[in-house]
Amino acid sequence: MTEQRIGYLGPKGTFTKMAVDALFEGGEFVGYENIPACLDAVEAGEISTAVVPIENAIEGSVHLTVDYLVHHVNQSIIAELTVPIKQHLLVHPDHEGEIKKVYSHSHAIAQCHQYLHTQYPNAEVENTASTGKAAEVVASEGPGVAAIANHLAAEQNGLRFMDTDIHDYDNNHTRFAVVQKVPTTLKVKDHPVTKHKTTVMVTLPKDYVGALHQVLAAFAWRKMNLSKIESRPLKTGLGNYFFLIDVDQPYDHVLFPGVQAELEALGCQLKVLGTYPSYQVDVPSPVK
Amino acid sequence: MTEQRIGYLGPKGTFTKMAVDALFEGGEFVGYENIPACLDAVEAGEISTAVVPIENAIEGSVHLTVDYLVHHVNQSIIAELTVPIKQHLLVHPDHEGEIKKVYSHSHAIAQCHQYLHTQYPNAEVENTASTGKAAEVVASEGPGVAAIANHLAAEQNGLRFMDTDIHDYDNNHTRFAVVQKVPTTLKVKDHPVTKHKTTVMVTLPKDYVGALHQVLAAFAWRKMNLSKIESRPLKTGLGNYFFLIDVDQPYDHVLFPGVQAELEALGCQLKVLGTYPSYQVDVPSPVK
Repeated sequence: MTEQRIGYLGPKGTFTKMAVDALFEGGEFVGYENIPACLDAVEAGEISTAVVPIENAIEGSVHLTVDYLVHHVNQSIIAELTVPIKQHLLVHPDHEGEIKKVYSHSHAIAQCHQYLHTQYPNAEVENTASTGKAAEVVASEGPGVAAIANHLAAEQNGLRFMDTDIHDYDNNHTRFAVVQKVPTTLKVKDHPVTKHKTTVMVTLPKDYVGALHQVLAAFAWRKMNLSKIESRPLKTGLGNYFFLIDVDQPYDHVLFPGVQAELEALGCQLKVLGTYPSYQVDVPSPVK
Repeated sequence: MTEQRIGYLGPKGTFTKMAVDALFEGGEFVGYENIPACLDAVEAGEISTAVVPIENAIEGSVHLTVDYLVHHVNQSIIAELTVPIKQHLLVHPDHEGEIKKVYSHSHAIAQCHQYLHTQYPNAEVENTASTGKAAEVVASEGPGVAAIANHLAAEQNGLRFMDTDIHDYDNNHTRFAVVQKVPTTLKVKDHPVTKHKTTVMVTLPKDYVGALHQVLAAFAWRKMNLSKIESRPLKTGLGNYFFLIDVDQPYDHVLFPGVQAELEALGCQLKVLGTYPSYQVDVPSPVK
């Protein structure tokens, strides 16, 4: 492929599309309806690269991304992208007076729960399939209703910002994984690389007391810092878990193979899901 | 309150409602539009008990439940309930011939991705706000379309099972937390209690190498088994984490206080989110 062809979790106006627009320098972009479809397209060679949410997402399930990478496809994480989640209240340009109804995805509504509760206690709230869809509904229904969505959805549907940054929590971020089947160099814009990370998956032989403690000891005595750890069911029945561990350093040929040899001696398996730069992207708050 | 008044993540026909119906012996049931609204209702005394998904849910975000329990309300987990996720393909009773379109929540569509890909490669797929909503749409549109939803949604909307158990993974479960402000005895049906668990939240003083390893050592040398561990951002900025740990035993006044004292000596904080029985509920597969 001469040009990078990048798939993302659609539809247009999603936070994933915002992340893609912010990260890449050129390329062709293809929206997919869900995370498995997007990763399958990489597997089939339809696209070279997929961008999917991996933590704290609005649309889509984080667990789904991890589980699909682990169980279904053979792809590597080649970059990660952290984007702040900023939610806005969008109305039709001709809107004035009372807001009778607020549309959004259930996760976005939940993220703005305190705001809605205090500012619009009497407005009816209706769930939509995505925040982008909510913006479309408001554009078509006209004045009197509002959507909770991001600034990209506002632009694409010609809506006005009634209020900005209405999410209850600041410091709410989504992490996106950039994955490829055969790692190639990405053409990205000039973003700060905050750190290099390595994600590994560790499977334990059985659920025995202190097993995880032994696994972590292999990292700890080498002074390898872990920024995230999560146990996930193996899908072979309740009680069988694997561990996803983010190590705060790039893969190397001394420490990581050392960890792997120790864990294998304990009956564990270790698989590297990727070693990659972590980009941080800021999204400016729009002006009302 | 003389009778138990139980709130759940609605609308009707959700997996949460199925869990509630399966667990409780009598009581009054109130559906809430999202997880924060449900937990707020407990806080306000409108309901005595809330049932919300805490892991691997279809509707709602797992992280949202945990974060809201940690940051917003002062409530305890008093029971947990594990329910298998079974998805079915539902059609109008008069349907025959081709299925042109399939409606469902994006997570349910993703869970049946392989099935749809092989069995209905030409059907259009449209996201709805919930699986219950998808069933409503099919009931109103009539023959020619289908919904992916559970058996409760089929019953409530008078739909027929075109195909059953169409989810790609077996052994896919959702865990629900039963929470109360002031723990009282629950009137529950006769379900097996698979184990007693205690969930604790551990906050580290700062992100230092090997910190988690030290935390786990406090459990490991006491031979306390951990069935789940997850790091979650503290919402005070990227890189600040707390840990949610499920211990496979009930709270006691020797081992747990011992762990707590050791962790506090290391500069950590430990908060018990609940000690509770874990119920397992089975849902029979419907007959076509």
